Parts: sequence; C-alpha cells; structure tokens
Amino acid sequence: MSIEVREIHLRRRPIGLPTPEHFDLVSNRIREPEPGQLLVRNTWMSVDPYMRGRMDERKSYIAPFRLGEAMDGAAVGVVEFSNDPAFSVGDAVVHFAGWRDFAVIDAATARRIDPELPAQAYLGALGFPGLTAYVGLTRIANARQGETIFVSAASGAVGSIVAQIAKLGGLRVIASVGSADKAAWLRNEIGVDAVINYRETADLTAALAAAAPEGIHIYFDNVGGDHLEAALAAAQTHARFVLCGMISGYNSDAPASGPRNIFQAIEKRIRLQGLIVSDHIDLIPEFERKMGVWIKEGKVALRETVVDGLDNAPDAFIGLFKGANTGKMLVRL
Amino acid sequence: MSIEVREIHLRRRPIGLPTPEHFDLVSNRIREPEPGQLLVRNTWMSVDPYMRGRMDERKSYIAPFRLGEAMDGAAVGVVEFSNDPAFSVGDAVVHFAGWRDFAVIDAATARRIDPELPAQAYLGALGFPGLTAYVGLTRIANARQGETIFVSAASGAVGSIVAQIAKLGGLRVIASVGSADKAAWLRNEIGVDAVINYRETADLTAALAAAAPEGIHIYFDNVGGDHLEAALAAAQTHARFVLCGMISGYNSDAPASGPRNIFQAIEKRIRLQGLIVSDHIDLIPEFERKMGVWIKEGKVALRETVVDGLDNAPDAFIGLFKGANTGKMLVRL
Repeated sequence: MSIEVREIHLRRRPIGLPTPEHFDLVSNRIREPEPGQLLVRNTWMSVDPYMRGRMDERKSYIAPFRLGEAMDGAAVGVVEFSNDPAFSVGDAVVHFAGWRDFAVIDAATARRIDPELPAQAYLGALGFPGLTAYVGLTRIANARQGETIFVSAASGAVGSIVAQIAKLGGLRVIASVGSADKAAWLRNEIGVDAVINYRETADLTAALAAAAPEGIHIYFDNVGGDHLEAALAAAQTHARFVLCGMISGYNSDAPASGPRNIFQAIEKRIRLQGLIVSDHIDLIPEFERKMGVWIKEGKVALRETVVDGLDNAPDAFIGLFKGANTGKMLVRL
Repeated sequence: MSIEVREIHLRRRPIGLPTPEHFDLVSNRIREPEPGQLLVRNTWMSVDPYMRGRMDERKSYIAPFRLGEAMDGAAVGVVEFSNDPAFSVGDAVVHFAGWRDFAVIDAATARRIDPELPAQAYLGALGFPGLTAYVGLTRIANARQGETIFVSAASGAVGSIVAQIAKLGGLRVIASVGSADKAAWLRNEIGVDAVINYRETADLTAALAAAAPEGIHIYFDNVGGDHLEAALAAAQTHARFVLCGMISGYNSDAPASGPRNIFQAIEKRIRLQGLIVSDHIDLIPEFERKMGVWIKEGKVALRETVVDGLDNAPDAFIGLFKGANTGKMLVRL
C-alpha cells in the first residue's frame, strides 16, 4: 500500500528573490507508516524567512533544501494512522514535515499539542518564532524591567512576540516596521512605546536617536543592514544585541554591506550574540508553560496572516520578503 | 614656588593620520604638590593606538584630549617629592600623567610598582596592554586549552601578550602581522603555530582558512576591517570574538566598511564582545600576580620598541600606525 500526497519541491535554486517558478507542486506516493511512525494530515504549515538560506547550496547551521524532494519545515496536523503506542488517531501534533498535505513521520519527531490552544499557535507564538523571541530576551539579552529595547521587523512572527514579551516584562519598546498599518497595530493594539516606519524615514539613525534619546539597552535584530547601524549608533554602554535575522540581505545577490560603525561595539562594550533557536530547545517546557498562560489570559495576541492552500505556499513564502504579513505568516491546508 | 616642566600638547585635531605638526612641545610651570599629591619624574611613557580616538572631538568611553593642554596616558616615574604619607621619595610608581617629563599628581592615582620587575613593563605586559590581553582571553573569551585562537596585530603591545598567554594556556595560536621580521619573531621566539603576513597575502580569508582548516574558536581583534571578515568566515560554531581594537580604521577619514559577512555571526552563533580594559580593573591584583610570575620565570617575553626623548614621543605615536613597533612601543624620558 502507498499513500498519495501532494508536496512542494524546490525546482531550482534562486538567485535573489525567489519566484513561483522556483517551486513545483508535485503529486507523490509514499510508503505507509512503519512501526514507530505516524501518518499525519497537515492542517497548517509554516513559512519562515530563514528558509531562504536553505534554498542556497552551502554549508550552514541547517542543511539546504534538496532539489526534487519535498521541502520541510514546521507544521501541525492530525494523526490519521498511528504505528506508535505514544500517539492515537486524532491527536493534534506539531512536527517538521511541512510543505505537503500528508506526511509519514517518525513518532519521535512529533509532539502532541495542547488542544485548548489554537493549533496554529504552535507555528508562531508557541512555536519556534515565539521561542526565539523568548530565548533572545531572556537567555541572550537578559532583559530587565525599565530597559529600552529596539526591535526590527517588529510586526513579524518573531518581532511581534519580542515586542509583546518585552512589554509584559516592563521594558520600553521601540519598534520598526515597513507600513503604516503595521505601525498602527503595534502602537494601538500591542502598546509599544514608539514606532518607526523605516520606509518613510530618510535617516533611520536619526529616527532611532529621537525615539530613544537615552539610548537603547537591547537591540533585537531581525533585519541587519541600516537597522544594525542605527542600533549601534543608539546603543548605550554595555548594550546587548541579539542577532536573530538579517532579512534585508537574504535575497541580495550582491555582497552585503556590513555595519560601518562596528567600532562602536568596542567603544560601548556592546555584546552581539548570534541566535539560532535550535540551540535552546531545553527551554521549550518553560517557554510553553509561560506562553500558554499568556495566550489563554489574552496577554499575548495571536496575530496571523493566513494564506489558504498548499499550492499557495510559495506565494506565502515570497510574501515574507515583501512585507505581506502582519504577525505570523501561515498556510492553512 | 612652581616647577618647570615640558609637556606635549595636542595643537590641533588631525584628520587621518597625525603628523608631527599636530603636536607641540611646550615648557610650562606647574604648582608644587599640595597635601595628598606627589611630584613625579617620569622615566617612561606609553603611546598606544587608542589615543588616536582621543584626538577627535567626540563623545566616547574616555574624554578627548583638550587642545592646548598636556596630553595624558600611562607613565611610570620616580617620586621626587611626596606630600602624601603613603609614598616616599624614590618610590617607583605607575600613573596616568604621561606625555610630560615631570608631573604633579594626586597620590590616589598612583600605584607603587614591584622593584624586582622592569618599571617599563608596567606600561606593557604588566600594564593596561597586558591586562587587556588577560581579560580578553579569560573573562571575555573564556579561552580553553586545545582551542584555536586567531590574533591580529599579534606583534603589538596587546597582541604579543595575547599570543603568549594563549600559548601558556595550551591554545593553538594563529597570528597576523605586517612584516617578515615580526612573523619570524612570533614563530621562532614566541612559538606561535602559524603566522600570516597580511601585507604579503592577497586573500586573508583564504590564508586564515588554510592556517585553521578546522576553524577558529576565538578571534582577538586588534585590527578590524578585512581581518574581522576573515575571522567571521573562519569561525567555528559558538566562536567568541574579543573586539579590542580596529587599528585599520583609526586614521580613515572616509566611512569605514563594515564586515560584509556579519550574517555569519547568526549562522555560527558567534558572540562578539567589545572590550575596554577600564571596565576590568578589579582583575588587576590577580593579573599582576600571575603576570609577575610569568615574567620572572621567563615565560612571557618583554619585547619592546624604545624611542628616546619626550620630543620624539609624537613620532613614536605616529609610528604605531605604520607598524614601527614590535612589542610595546615605549618612550624613554
């Protein structure tokens, strides 16, 4: 017996911004679950900016996507058939075999999710983006009440959680975003203290200095480029920078320009620390406990941008680099 | 009564590399020591690359030099007259009123030095350069036996101590320098494991990759620019970068170029930490105890480049940016 599935494959590796032509929607047949495996019907899948790096053929912290195979990434689904005693048919699980409608996965790679919480939250606020925000603020930046934080791409999946956890922790939050709608959402619904719309700002360094006249204690970088330069210029002595993403450079086919004022890291004794969330999975239980409560109590808003259908997943992904999402970009299957 | 002294003043602020015309040798009369003060005859004074930053009129971790006043910096001297019970005539002291032949200083700013050690060592291996190396390796980088470290400007006052402490700690040391003589000294006398002469290297990144095929665990940056890029490219996962100096940019009157591959800090989870030694004076007792022993036992070599005479101090300083020194650049008064 075999199972017919639909999968998104990477057809060829993009240079610069991907287009729909870089993807294929493929019908495939896969083998039924062996002992220790599950058949899962995916209900939601995640598209994330980091996936752009996996489209290039080079060594990194995570293997590149392979051409002519199903792409992968975080997804949630329902167990349709279980060949493992730890799971039952109907269980909702989070796992890593996204970019397809059905998947056969090793039970060890699946985790059951709390049915009292929205399943798709496990791809956003309760998933790796939320964990990234939590780890960056706590373990990396050691954020403290009363400090000022600057977060870039603050309406994105990670940034919007950074902003919310920081507000819960009593920090002053300065957010940068790329549209007036996103700015309004952050200001009016999330309650951040200042918002910079970088698309309408000629001098980001001056704008940040105006928003943080006393300087910033923490910079949570999701953008890189001019945002990182502005943050170096605005940093207080002993500031902590969480280097989490640099989306401004992900689709550049020219050499990026580095922060010209990196010398300020010496003068101000700044600590810049790269963050990859998979180093910190030991914090998942603590994180899920806290975030679960925050969501149930309405203290963290689950803002999502939803695209329907596996065939639209490439567009959803491409949209990440065009500012198409407010909050977590999700594909509903 | 007053005392006639000779002082070096900053005449005007340089743009780019300073020249002798930016300095004045001035005869001055100063007041005799008040209670709690000392008259010190300086015997050695320090010139250091960081002083270049103090020639610019801008806010930083240390105040700019003021025009028309004696410059200052680390010096050692002998107490000629004491108005403080803690010091006696003839005491050798280290203090911060360099760039002059005699100084009246507050006794609280002076420290008596160990007469069994060369006085000028308190400006180099036993002074702030040595402490910088020690702090960077221990408190900042947490260097461990068996790791590989890359140190730039490795024949300089800080770099040469970094290389030696690292060798004592059982690290593999890759050094970069700007001349064949310096390379030979490091290889043959200090025993570093590999030396790159960057002036004879077309592709520093390739040269470092060849010297460290397994990658580097620590980068001790005294240079910035292409050295920092090469180190990012060569870094192992979780590498630690001590950002201590960026001499390649100190005399640039154009905007510096930043490290174009800063994204590797995310991919490799690198920690970059700016270091200013004055944050770490709590480590002076521990450091002086250890370094004193290392020097007495011949485990750390006191390599010095000596320029004679206060009137030659500006040339000694300018020489720092031309690679004129091997080891600590000193002015003997």
